[in-house]
Formats: sequence, structure tokens, C-alpha cells
Amino acid sequence: MTVRFGLLGAGRIGKVHARAVGANPDAKLVAVADAFEKAAGDLAAQYGAEVRTIDAIEQAKDIDAVIICTPTDTHADLIERFAKAGKAIFCEKPIDLDVKRVKKCLATVDRTGAVLMVGFNRRFDPHFAAVRKAIDEGAIGDVEMVTITSRDPGAPPVDYIKRSGGIFRDMTIHDFDMARFLLGEEPVSVSAHASVLVDKEVGKAGDYDSASVILVTKSGRQAVISNSRRATYGYDQRIEVHGSKGMVAAENQRPVSIEVANGAGYTRPPLHDFFMTRYIDAYANEIAAFIATMAKRGRKVASPSGKDGLAALVLADAALKSVKTGKAVKVG
Amino acid sequence: MTVRFGLLGAGRIGKVHARAVGANPDAKLVAVADAFEKAAGDLAAQYGAEVRTIDAIEQAKDIDAVIICTPTDTHADLIERFAKAGKAIFCEKPIDLDVKRVKKCLATVDRTGAVLMVGFNRRFDPHFAAVRKAIDEGAIGDVEMVTITSRDPGAPPVDYIKRSGGIFRDMTIHDFDMARFLLGEEPVSVSAHASVLVDKEVGKAGDYDSASVILVTKSGRQAVISNSRRATYGYDQRIEVHGSKGMVAAENQRPVSIEVANGAGYTRPPLHDFFMTRYIDAYANEIAAFIATMAKRGRKVASPSGKDGLAALVLADAALKSVKTGKAVKVG
Amino acid sequence: MTVRFGLLGAGRIGKVHARAVGANPDAKLVAVADAFEKAAGDLAAQYGAEVRTIDAIEQAKDIDAVIICTPTDTHADLIERFAKAGKAIFCEKPIDLDVKRVKKCLATVDRTGAVLMVGFNRRFDPHFAAVRKAIDEGAIGDVEMVTITSRDPGAPPVDYIKRSGGIFRDMTIHDFDMARFLLGEEPVSVSAHASVLVDKEVGKAGDYDSASVILVTKSGRQAVISNSRRATYGYDQRIEVHGSKGMVAAENQRPVSIEVANGAGYTRPPLHDFFMTRYIDAYANEIAAFIATMAKRGRKVASPSGKDGLAALVLADAALKSVKTGKAVKVG
Amino acid sequence: MTVRFGLLGAGRIGKVHARAVGANPDAKLVAVADAFEKAAGDLAAQYGAEVRTIDAIEQAKDIDAVIICTPTDTHADLIERFAKAGKAIFCEKPIDLDVKRVKKCLATVDRTGAVLMVGFNRRFDPHFAAVRKAIDEGAIGDVEMVTITSRDPGAPPVDYIKRSGGIFRDMTIHDFDMARFLLGEEPVSVSAHASVLVDKEVGKAGDYDSASVILVTKSGRQAVISNSRRATYGYDQRIEVHGSKGMVAAENQRPVSIEVANGAGYTRPPLHDFFMTRYIDAYANEIAAFIATMAKRGRKVASPSGKDGLAALVLADAALKSVKTGKAVKVG
Repeated sequence: MTVRFGLLGAGRIGKVHARAVGANPDAKLVAVADAFEKAAGDLAAQYGAEVRTIDAIEQAKDIDAVIICTPTDTHADLIERFAKAGKAIFCEKPIDLDVKRVKKCLATVDRTGAVLMVGFNRRFDPHFAAVRKAIDEGAIGDVEMVTITSRDPGAPPVDYIKRSGGIFRDMTIHDFDMARFLLGEEPVSVSAHASVLVDKEVGKAGDYDSASVILVTKSGRQAVISNSRRATYGYDQRIEVHGSKGMVAAENQRPVSIEVANGAGYTRPPLHDFFMTRYIDAYANEIAAFIATMAKRGRKVASPSGKDGLAALVLADAALKSVKTGKAVKVG
Repeated sequence: MTVRFGLLGAGRIGKVHARAVGANPDAKLVAVADAFEKAAGDLAAQYGAEVRTIDAIEQAKDIDAVIICTPTDTHADLIERFAKAGKAIFCEKPIDLDVKRVKKCLATVDRTGAVLMVGFNRRFDPHFAAVRKAIDEGAIGDVEMVTITSRDPGAPPVDYIKRSGGIFRDMTIHDFDMARFLLGEEPVSVSAHASVLVDKEVGKAGDYDSASVILVTKSGRQAVISNSRRATYGYDQRIEVHGSKGMVAAENQRPVSIEVANGAGYTRPPLHDFFMTRYIDAYANEIAAFIATMAKRGRKVASPSGKDGLAALVLADAALKSVKTGKAVKVG
Repeated sequence: MTVRFGLLGAGRIGKVHARAVGANPDAKLVAVADAFEKAAGDLAAQYGAEVRTIDAIEQAKDIDAVIICTPTDTHADLIERFAKAGKAIFCEKPIDLDVKRVKKCLATVDRTGAVLMVGFNRRFDPHFAAVRKAIDEGAIGDVEMVTITSRDPGAPPVDYIKRSGGIFRDMTIHDFDMARFLLGEEPVSVSAHASVLVDKEVGKAGDYDSASVILVTKSGRQAVISNSRRATYGYDQRIEVHGSKGMVAAENQRPVSIEVANGAGYTRPPLHDFFMTRYIDAYANEIAAFIATMAKRGRKVASPSGKDGLAALVLADAALKSVKTGKAVKVG
Repeated sequence: MTVRFGLLGAGRIGKVHARAVGANPDAKLVAVADAFEKAAGDLAAQYGAEVRTIDAIEQAKDIDAVIICTPTDTHADLIERFAKAGKAIFCEKPIDLDVKRVKKCLATVDRTGAVLMVGFNRRFDPHFAAVRKAIDEGAIGDVEMVTITSRDPGAPPVDYIKRSGGIFRDMTIHDFDMARFLLGEEPVSVSAHASVLVDKEVGKAGDYDSASVILVTKSGRQAVISNSRRATYGYDQRIEVHGSKGMVAAENQRPVSIEVANGAGYTRPPLHDFFMTRYIDAYANEIAAFIATMAKRGRKVASPSGKDGLAALVLADAALKSVKTGKAVKVG
């Protein structure tokens, strides 16, 4: 079976997904929609697809699934439309910045029975997936402490910051999902601290650029997240899980792993510059997982699901509340 | 000048300090006191010292300084006695488990003008000291985030736990001192979570064995501490400091750094088994620093001082309060 | 300009090259030939190409270049045929196992002016290429000593061994090319020792499975190659170059770089299993380089060229002679 | 039992051994002899020893063993004298630069039954010793290939070079001993190449500064040694042993193992500056092993013995002959 795709949004991440679809023998990119028709056209041409409107894709009989890469504030509406239209949906995170809107959207999805997968790409990074696999195989016994270090190479433009929902909903949300992916239990408490250390403009926009978060589960498992919008040495993405029988960790990745030694010491090159290169395999694996889900007989359940998207957003909201109140915020 | 030492307490850590004194060309071990006379005698014989009572050491004219390695509940009294007796004092941490008692003790020390150094040995570890030196030299710009991972290989006996003052005053206190050593600003807020994941007996004794702490300074610098009373792979002691221009980290240490590769992968041996081997250089450097302080002309100020001992204890108390109340606790 | 390819040989390495062509926006796979028609058909179908005979490809007007992945003993003949037919040629190493035959073949290529690139894929590995780049940029000053460790995970079948020309022409030849790529001067002397330590059947077939080689250039630069047909921990591929100002090295690669720590120590997974996974990027970059050469105006000179193929074979022959005679063999 | 030592030679390495004796509870430094009386006096004072002449030490009843750290050309004579005087002997390598002289000296030692240990300190390095232990425990199966990389931070003064016996007898001799220590079989063939790449003055003095050596044992096991009198990044000392079941390696050591990351990459400090710091533990362990041998009842056999000293020298001579003749030289 070949899964026939419509792609909504031909921007940076849209191109990444188009390439993943194009390289997958079980998938075909049929149509691309974008407000900028040239962007849609260029991308469509590259993969032998057509340019179509969103309406046309909604009604198309030759399209099984859509990939939503449009601006965040359109996600929930599009999910609802395409769920009702009977299409399977892969949507970039977040579903929406507002928990209520997400819940309403997921209720619609539930009613339609549509397959919905949310783009927490890091679950599909080969190294992080191998960490989870090691846990599942019992290599470290019971999970006790999860440590996630996640630092962007630099702060985004203030315009982006203003629309982003803030560091917890925009950046930490990936780490919340990763913590949930690894803890093996749902967090019940969130404590967070955040500051402006990198760029005062971020602070003027009402956001933070440096944050530390502790999550605790019912049985007392703990996750610590360290975030910064700065990392002079590249995109810093590490996870470590400590358990009753041992520890498993995924180290940072770099494009080339050479080492030069001289009087100044031994130097390895900086890390990947950002997510587009660091997670190139993760994006391909993610779409492959979505396609594999589509290929299943019977009830198809995508993972990470809309509920995973909601859960991470709830943690982000709790973190922000914790910063504002100086209290541990209960969730779940 | 040779510094002439009296050693109070001939137990495990007393022996470590005796060796450091014995190996230092500017110091001499003159007398050893211990409730177990045989322990005192064996240790004294090894270094050509005499067995004396604490009283005799207090009154001795041939002793310049004492090293206090007796049980914690005797520390404050002994500091006060020897400060009044005009001796310089090196005291193992903590001064006392009670902040009020520590303050009273330090007031006495202040009045006498005695030199008092507190045994936060990790500041003298060559690797951690090199981290601090890199910061001081500007290698990473302004400090923003400090991450400390500190895991003991196993939980101590419950009897020890009961007398220890709890995980924050007994174990995390070293990490609080390290955070202060590296942050470059005093913490003003402490948030902590703690659980019993390793040993239920620890919980029955009213303590925790797994803890996560966030410290925040006035300007928003953050330190995260991760503690566990369990690490199957050895004594886990890592620090990392992230700044505006870069990052500096000290990795774990192991007795031998070989690697064996076979079908199961590439394996390096476990870490040092515990502090006695991991910090052997730190203990020697610590006493050397105390001796160097003694050798200075003019007003001698030891570092870490009694005030450093107090400051770490205040953070420990705040952490415990944060766990109990679910709130960030203000300090300073 | 799109380079239109014919692929000769649809086996394991043929598939790798077909994928590289398929993924390259400046190339198109037009035809596939293979003695096993089904193999050719399956591969052609995957990339929208046709099945054709070698004769048909030779005469085709819609084919600019061929990729030769047929058995070694057909390489020289095919190179000559396609050079005369005016096609650009990418040929898997070696051109032939006999130096005389190679020289005759290259003379024909020279006469026709055909572009010929030989498949020393490792030059295009991102890590090894970065080593060369560091040298070219002066990071280590003048090259003095090159160290190449190259160990296969296991010995090939004896049938393969018998046709292979022996370890030096089959396996070490890649290392000879890498040494030439890195030394910056041609070797003038070859000393080699070889033994049978892995598999006695290899010895019965007249070959060796373990070899050490020293190459020396005119100015005294040295390269050491260590080869084994065994490596229980995966495909061991390391290079290190030591120079007047420093050293640069490329470490081994593994599919996932996680680490599991427990009482047995810290374990990272084995390396890539063999060249098909280890050099996947190298194969893609190699074909891309060939295509880029084709896209150039004016005289197109491929690198590594037929002369590079010859030079490595000459070193292989010298190594074998050195083993047999116990003498350093002069070359060049 | 306390072993009472006389130390012959109070230079750099003499001081290292004095410290090792001083720190060993089972040993006592009784006397120091040196042509420079002040050097002897200073060192003696530091360890509560006396200054004596070599004659006096030879005749002393209160001395059980001597440590010979005098210039190389006195070693053989002194060994013979003290063997006849009934003292146990620890002698720095080499016994002599001339194989015949060494054989004559060892014959004398044999006749007297004296204990003679030769200072191949690297066998006692904790990391290299752990490599050997892993082999002995079967961790890598049968040894197949040994790789030794040994590079000095810089070339010694030409005056030293002239007296040194050349790179093979002075520097590589340690690697020959290490190869013998690890191969598990005696080498039967030596092939070597050497050049002058670092310092032309070395060449004018008739020596080389860069060398590559292949040793082969009877069953075909191979050892490769790479030597340079230059390493801008510190004292480069690595060993790797590849076997039928796996590989074991000891990596380089550095004084502090921190890492600084910034836009230029991740940098660890240079290695130890030279053998006095790199092998500080090895020197202490070496003397401890000698003392432990002395403490044994019955026939005491030191390891590495005089025969080990001879065997390494024979390999050095063979290497030089191989360079001169361009042939593999048979030994053993």
C-alpha cells in the first residue's frame, strides 16, 4: 500500500517532511498547498506533486493523509477539518497554544476516529530511541531520575518569541514530551524557574530565555530539564536516565567527529548547528512511523498522539504558573 | 615554617588527613587524640606522632593547628575550645546540623580571630578546581547555568542516616557549596523535590534518597543539583557550567581508563568506588591549602571558611523546607 | 544539466550507487544491466529506469555515464569499451588485479580522453574528508606519520578470497589509497608482514588474514597500516595523521551513540557492522563528486582517477613481494 | 620486614625513586651517593638518610638493596659490584648499550644469585597493567596484533642524543619491552624504518627522530610501534591489543580532564608534559613491586629481570640493522 500525501505548508519544516515522504518507498507526495504559491510550486515540482488549495486537498479522493506544517494558529482548525474529511493527519507541534482549544480539537478527532500523530520528532531520533529501547529492555532497572539538557544555539527573533507562546510552550514542550516518553509514569508536579540571561529583548517580550524545571511523578520519579536559548558550541541535546540498575545516556551529535590535537589541547568540532541537521534522521523516521501506522490493518493508533500533544502543553502551562507563583504546581 | 598539627579523631577521614600532613614538607603531625586509644596509637606511630588527650592538645605549646575529624555533634564545641586556645582549626563539614549553633560558634571564632577552614574537599579536586579556573579566566563568559550531578554508590546504613541531618545536610551540602563556588553569586531561592526510591528504610528514618534542587541567584543564574543514594556504576561526580561564551565541564574519574571492545560493545571500567579514592588528591590539596594559609604573614583567612559552612547549611535547610511546603524558599 | 546513468551490475554495491543516483537532483538512472535479469528489473523499477543489455547501454544516446559494478575480471574490458563509446565511467575498485592489464586499460582511456573515476569511497567519508581538509588548512603542519587501522568484522568466504587477489589487493588497497591521500607524497618503499591468525582456510587458499605495512616516502614520511579480517566489535576504520604542528584523527563510527553504565562499567554499542552502513554517506558523496565532475565545463578530471587505482595496486603488489622476500620493496 | 635502600645517583629519576621509597611503609632510604655531594645531601636530608660514598654503600651492613640511577655507562659495572656485595639491585634501563657487555654482566649476576630488576616502569602504569590483566583474564582471547604509539613531546638535546645509543636503544626500547609484555610470545623478526623529520641536528648526530617498527612472533602475532620525538599536544603514550575475541586499549592521560566548549568546538587540555608526571604512579608501583619481591621468602625473582633488559636491547639492535639493510632482521 502506498500512502498518498497532501502537504500543507511548504516552509522549512514542510520541505523536510516532503523529502521524508519522497524517500519513502511506501509513500507518495500528491499535492502541496501554501499561501505562497511559488513555494508550493517549487516543492511540488521537486517531488512530482501538484499544487492544490487546502480545499482541494480536503476533498481529494487521491489523498489519504495530510501533513500540517502551517502556522501554529491554524493547526487546530485544520486538524478538525481534515479529521472530518476522513484523512489521516500528521501535525507539527503544538496543536494549539491554548489547552481548551486543544481539548476541543481532540474531542472532534475522537468523534471522527481519525488517525492523528503529533510531531514530537525527538522520539524518533535513533540515539534517543535507543535510550528508550534500553529502558524497555530492562538495562537500567526502574527509572528513577531523568535529566534533559536542551539548549538552542541562539535566541529566535523577538517577533517569533511573541507568537511562540513562550519558552515553555515553544521550546521546553519537546523536553516535556521527552520526559514523559522516558519517565514511565505521568508527572504530577511541576516546579520551574526562569530568567532572562541571554537577550533582554526576550524579557521585554514577556518571555524567558533560561529555564530549569523539575517534574515529579506519583511514585517520586524525578525529571530535571535545563533550557537555554544560547549555546555557543552548537545545538545541545542530551538525555540521561538513571535507574535502579544503571544509567543510560545519549550524547550530543556532531556533523563530523574528528579531533585535532596541538599545544592548545584536543579539539573536536562544534555540534550540529540546529534541529534541521541534528534531527534529520528523526524527521525521516517520524514520517516513516506515521506511514507504518497507516499501513496497519484494523484500528490505527498513532504515537505520539494528540493526547501526548495535550499532555506536554499542560506541563508547559504548569511550568509557567510555577514560575509566576513560586510554587510546585500539581497536574494530572 | 613548619605547621605542627594535632589530629582529633583517628577514623577513616582522620587517616586521610594524617597522610596529607605526613606527606607535606611544611607540616608535621605532633599528636593524635581518639576515644579509641589503640586507633590513636596506631596512627600516631605511623607518622612519628604522640597520643595525647584533647585537653593536652588544647594546652600544648608545640601545636599550631588542629584537624577536627570527630563525630559531627562535637564539632562546634571543639571549634570554640580550640579557637579560644589560639589554635588554627581545620574542621570536617558540617560545623553543626543546627544553623543557630553554627552561628553562635562562628561568633566565638570571630571574637578570637582564629583561622577556621571547613572541609569542603571538592573545591580542591584538580578537575573541579580547573573548572573554576576556566571560569575565572573568562573561558565561558558570564556564568548562567550550573549543573551538578552527585550520586553515591549506595545508601549509608540507617543508623548513619538518622544522625546525618538528612540528605540535604549530609550529602547535598557538598553540592550546595560547589554551586556557590561556581555560580559567582549567592542563591536567593531554593526549590527542591525529594523521594524515597532506593531504600524504604531511608524513608522510615524520615529521610529521602533521591533529590532534585534548583537554586536561583538574584540576577537569575540557575543551578540544578541531582542527587541519588544509588549509582551502580560507581561514585558519580560531575559538574558543568554553562555561560554566555561557552561551557566547561568536569567528567567522572575512574581508577583505570582502559577500554575493552567486543561483540557487546566498548566498555570502560566503573568509576571510583567512593570519595576516599575519588577525592584522594582533593584531600591532600585541601590540607596543603590550609598549611599555605597558615604560612602567610598578616591576617590569615581560610577558604572555604566557617561562613561558607554556614551558607551551605542554610541552603540545606531551605531545601528541606521547600520539599515540605512545595514552595520556592527565599534565602539570603 | 542532468547526468544520465547506465548501471552495470545490480548487486549489493550496484544498489548503493543506484540509490545515490536516485537521490541526486542532478542525475537520473536511465538503464540497468545485469546477468540476472530479475535483479536488473527490480532495481530499474525502483528508480524508473529501464532494463537494457550492456551492448544497448554502450550504444545509447540517452546515457552520459556508466557505473561499473560487475565482477572484477570484467572491469578493464568494460572501461575500455565505454571509454571508446564516449561515456564517462565510474568503476568500482580495482580496475584489474594485474598491473599490466591496468596500465593497458588506462592507456586506452587516455587515448579516448574519457573521464574515469575509481571507487575509492573512503576519500568521500565526511570524517576522513574532514581529516584531509584539516591537513590542507595547515592544522597539523607538515605531515610526518600516518596511521591507518582497518579491520573487517570477519573473514570473507574462501571462494571470495580465491578470486580476490589476496588481502593486499582486496582489502589493504583501500588503505594504500588512503595513505596516498593523506601522506602528501608518494611512497617509495613498502615493508609488509602478514600472517594467518583468524582462519586457517584463508591460509590454505594462499592468502593472509592479518597484516602490518610500513610505507615510506622520499622525504621520510611514514605510514603504518594495520589490517585484520577480524574485529568482534564491528567494522574498525580509523585514521590518524601526525604532523609537525599537531595531530588529527577520525574515530570509529557507530549507528547509535548511547552509553549504558552499570556495575560492569560504561558500555557503548558496537561499531557499524560493515562498509554498507559505515560508508553510506561516503557512497552518496562519491557519486555526487562524480556528477559534479561531469557538470564542469572544459576538461573534466575525475579524482580518484585511474592512475590512483594503479598506484594503489602497485603498492599492494609491493607489499606482497615484501612479505615473500622479507625485504623493503622499492616502488615509484 | 623493612627493606633498607642505598640510592646511587640523586638526579631527576633518583629523586623519583627516593620519593617512592620514602612513601613505602616497608622501605627505608638509608644512604644516598652522588658525584655532586650537595645533590646527595639535599636528597638525603629530605628522607632522613645519610650521604655515603658508593664504596661505603657497597660495604654497608645496614643496606639490603640499591637503586642505580647513575649514568648509563656505569650501570653494568655497578650491577656487578653490588651483585658480588650481596645486595639486591634495581637498575634503571638500560643495563648497557652493548649487548655483549649486558650478557657478561648478567652472567655475573647469575653466578651471585643476586636479585636484579630493570626499570621498565611502564609495565607498572595502572592503565597498561590493566591492559595486561585484561589479556591474562581472557577478555580478548588470543593476542593477534599489538599497536604501540609512543611520542615524546620534543627531541632531547643533541648531546644527549649522542650518548643515548640512538632512538631504538633509548626510546623505542620501552616499546620493545611493552610489546614483549603484551604479545605473549617472543618476536622472531624485526622490520624498521626511521627518518629525520623533527630536527636536522638529530640526523647530523647520526640518529633518527621518527620511526616505525613491525615485530612478528613465531606464530605470526604482530606488533607495530610508532615513534616520534615530537608531539605538540603532550606526551603521547597509547597501547592497543587486538585479539581473537576483542580488543583492549589504554588511552592517553592528562593532568586534568575538563572540557571547554565554545564556537571553536570542544577542547580538552593537552596530555601530561612528559614521563615524570605521566608515569608518577608507575614509578611508585615499580619500587613497591621491587620491595614486594624482596619481602618474599625463598628464591626471589624480580620482573622485569635482567633478561628482559637484554631482550629489549636485542630488538633495538635488530631494528637499527633493519633500517640500515632494508631487510627484516631475524632475532631469537
